[in-house]
Amino acid sequence: MLEELKRQVYEANMELPRRGLVTYTWGNVSGLDRDSGYFVIKPSGVEYDALSPDDLAVVDLDLHLIEGNYQPSSDTATHAQIYRSCPAVGGIVHTHSTMATAWAQAGRSIPLYGTTHADYFLGPVPCTRSLTPEEINGEYEKNTGLVIIETFKEQGIDPMYTPAVLCKNHGPFAWGKDAAQAVYHAAVLEEVAKMALYTQMISPDAQPAPDSIKDKHFYRKHGSHAYYGQGQK
Amino acid sequence: MLEELKRQVYEANMELPRRGLVTYTWGNVSGLDRDSGYFVIKPSGVEYDALSPDDLAVVDLDLHLIEGNYQPSSDTATHAQIYRSCPAVGGIVHTHSTMATAWAQAGRSIPLYGTTHADYFLGPVPCTRSLTPEEINGEYEKNTGLVIIETFKEQGIDPMYTPAVLCKNHGPFAWGKDAAQAVYHAAVLEEVAKMALYTQMISPDAQPAPDSIKDKHFYRKHGSHAYYGQGQK
Amino acid sequence: MLEELKRQVYEANMELPRRGLVTYTWGNVSGLDRDSGYFVIKPSGVEYDALSPDDLAVVDLDLHLIEGNYQPSSDTATHAQIYRSCPAVGGIVHTHSTMATAWAQAGRSIPLYGTTHADYFLGPVPCTRSLTPEEINGEYEKNTGLVIIETFKEQGIDPMYTPAVLCKNHGPFAWGKDAAQAVYHAAVLEEVAKMALYTQMISPDAQPAPDSIKDKHFYRKHGSHAYYGQGQK
Amino acid sequence: MLEELKRQVYEANMELPRRGLVTYTWGNVSGLDRDSGYFVIKPSGVEYDALSPDDLAVVDLDLHLIEGNYQPSSDTATHAQIYRSCPAVGGIVHTHSTMATAWAQAGRSIPLYGTTHADYFLGPVPCTRSLTPEEINGEYEKNTGLVIIETFKEQGIDPMYTPAVLCKNHGPFAWGKDAAQAVYHAAVLEEVAKMALYTQMISPDAQPAPDSIKDKHFYRKHGSHAYYGQGQK
Repeated sequence: MLEELKRQVYEANMELPRRGLVTYTWGNVSGLDRDSGYFVIKPSGVEYDALSPDDLAVVDLDLHLIEGNYQPSSDTATHAQIYRSCPAVGGIVHTHSTMATAWAQAGRSIPLYGTTHADYFLGPVPCTRSLTPEEINGEYEKNTGLVIIETFKEQGIDPMYTPAVLCKNHGPFAWGKDAAQAVYHAAVLEEVAKMALYTQMISPDAQPAPDSIKDKHFYRKHGSHAYYGQGQK
Repeated sequence: MLEELKRQVYEANMELPRRGLVTYTWGNVSGLDRDSGYFVIKPSGVEYDALSPDDLAVVDLDLHLIEGNYQPSSDTATHAQIYRSCPAVGGIVHTHSTMATAWAQAGRSIPLYGTTHADYFLGPVPCTRSLTPEEINGEYEKNTGLVIIETFKEQGIDPMYTPAVLCKNHGPFAWGKDAAQAVYHAAVLEEVAKMALYTQMISPDAQPAPDSIKDKHFYRKHGSHAYYGQGQK
Repeated sequence: MLEELKRQVYEANMELPRRGLVTYTWGNVSGLDRDSGYFVIKPSGVEYDALSPDDLAVVDLDLHLIEGNYQPSSDTATHAQIYRSCPAVGGIVHTHSTMATAWAQAGRSIPLYGTTHADYFLGPVPCTRSLTPEEINGEYEKNTGLVIIETFKEQGIDPMYTPAVLCKNHGPFAWGKDAAQAVYHAAVLEEVAKMALYTQMISPDAQPAPDSIKDKHFYRKHGSHAYYGQGQK
Repeated sequence: MLEELKRQVYEANMELPRRGLVTYTWGNVSGLDRDSGYFVIKPSGVEYDALSPDDLAVVDLDLHLIEGNYQPSSDTATHAQIYRSCPAVGGIVHTHSTMATAWAQAGRSIPLYGTTHADYFLGPVPCTRSLTPEEINGEYEKNTGLVIIETFKEQGIDPMYTPAVLCKNHGPFAWGKDAAQAVYHAAVLEEVAKMALYTQMISPDAQPAPDSIKDKHFYRKHGSHAYYGQGQK
């Protein structure tokens, strides 16, 4: 069932340790099949070097386990909320990558300081508010997803133009058209988070990049006027 | 004698350089056999790539050398004190891992800034007081153990819920149910120490995570209501 | 056509990931054949491990594609401007290497703090001004090249004595007599950028190195009185 | 001639890139044969992966080239001065390792913040004064050695108890009983430099470790009362 999707999600999960984005089991990638409404996700607490495509869980958007020998990731309900809310998202990843997590712990959005950031995110990567004790003690993982969605709505951000978020005191989620692109965005986010910290250390009063260069770089790579790459993207 | 324990302690020692937690010989892992009251520990000053399971020393809790061709680690008396005082501890590790040591040198406990920390430690990782000159010039390594125990008692911390400590101006010790888990905790500690420094650099007035999210994450993974992982832990 | 130059430029491109200077496709190297006025450059958006010498594009200084199956790098016009303006330049590289990019994002030139810097750059590595919205919305990549040249002219810097620049809110360009030396300078720049940040963190009021030691080290390696190395450079 | 010493010095040189202490050709190790008064040193500007034991230069303490096909390191005169002044030194290394160089560029001695430092250096690692323009424009490399020696004399430091120095605006030298131990000390220095910076970042008013713990750790490993290791050191 969904063998090709499982293969993709498996590969995307294995890319996390290769990119230095996870320690031990601290991350999970999922990929969605929009036709069936099922998504494939890493099982909870399984080490990456013990993982095989057959270990992945298949879940529907109401969190029913459709197939799998293992419990799906404890963050499954967060993934489901993002899929439900963002029709163009086909893959999601959660990590505790060092620098993005540090920004989340500091409770600060990552300012857009340069073109490395603007090539992928059309504005600051937002940090959510804290969940209330009620949200935490209730359906925590689902509420995490709802607060992510609230953040993008309240700040008027298009999640396909800024495909990542920092959950306050927790860590980043990133997404994309599929699982591979979600992980790609998570890797870019980590690099951008690192550069932003160093930028502030070099110049504590560093200012965000001007809108003109931000827009230039984003739209050089995205949308109908893009001219970066070989045109197939 | 204690062949299986030696194998485990050997593997746990070798995990230290693989995880980037030691340079040269700067670390040691032990594992305890509660039935006999003997523990197995790395020999002093032996390089990791020259180490074999047979080189490990077997010591009792009064520090008598029971078996071994080499002198046990100079920190053996510290290990013994922790085993004596904490009945649930089955493995202990000491390292000079870079970031945890920097917090120890700064003499500061590591604040609980986020869920990466709260998944393993139910509060700040405490830093001990300085040893007095008398404690240093007397039985230094034993007194190091006693000051660790004093720290947990005075601050009312359960050492199984916060399985690591920073010895002021020295470095970290971590522990767990066995040698492998002790090293696992030492690796988490180093990552948490790194994230905490970056958190402060991003926002010098960063606040610890709220208790609600701290408790949620810790108890999601630990205790009778845990639901992270596959239930076997 | 230009097979030897293609091989050199291919090798120089592949050196970027080996030196940790690029993530994904974020960099490009070119090399110029002064006789024909053609230069060889990486195609746009192609992954390094999928690259072969035959994929490289051959372009003239007016940006006509002379040979190649792929679109040349989106930064090709910047390279062409530098080649046009600096007759001794035979190779150019653009990266988003972490620390040099952080300085560019902070909008600050890298001070010459020591001999590591002075061995290769005879003064601060300059940071350009921001491009105007008109320059960005017009021929952006060409204008990037023009602003680089303006920076060196206005500050009276010889580009062969300080073979690198930071483009504000963007990242570094470096160059040399050929593609290999350009990449060498990009690697030195990244290391120098890192050391300079750490220098400021250790001592926020650190001062640039005295001119006497700067000149000594630069001219120990460069020019007719050089005595470093085996004399063949 | 001096085949065994050449082999040792070659191995010590090759350890530099393995330990991440050098980029390109930025370092050199020498080893002295006290009987003949000859020392073996890396040739100037030769890449580490092109180096073989036969490429090493043999030089006497008056800098005469005794044997070798290549020019010796440009820093040879600095090595000679240290050998002349410190009868117990049998090996010397110079690097531009990142963190030690950053302290040198900041012009600050590395405070002794903890036991990692005190296990090898019995006090701060001193930073020299700047050389005068006359010293730089005269016999620069020899004068570098003289200023190192002056630093230890004026501050009353025993170079065998604190076997490293930072040359202001330049970088570190380290030494030991032989070439291997010199490189070992250079690697420790880099780690200690890193920890010291992080210590200050965690707590800008961090204080040096008390003398009692400094002395305890140094003499636990050195001198007639040492008890660390297996007693053969």
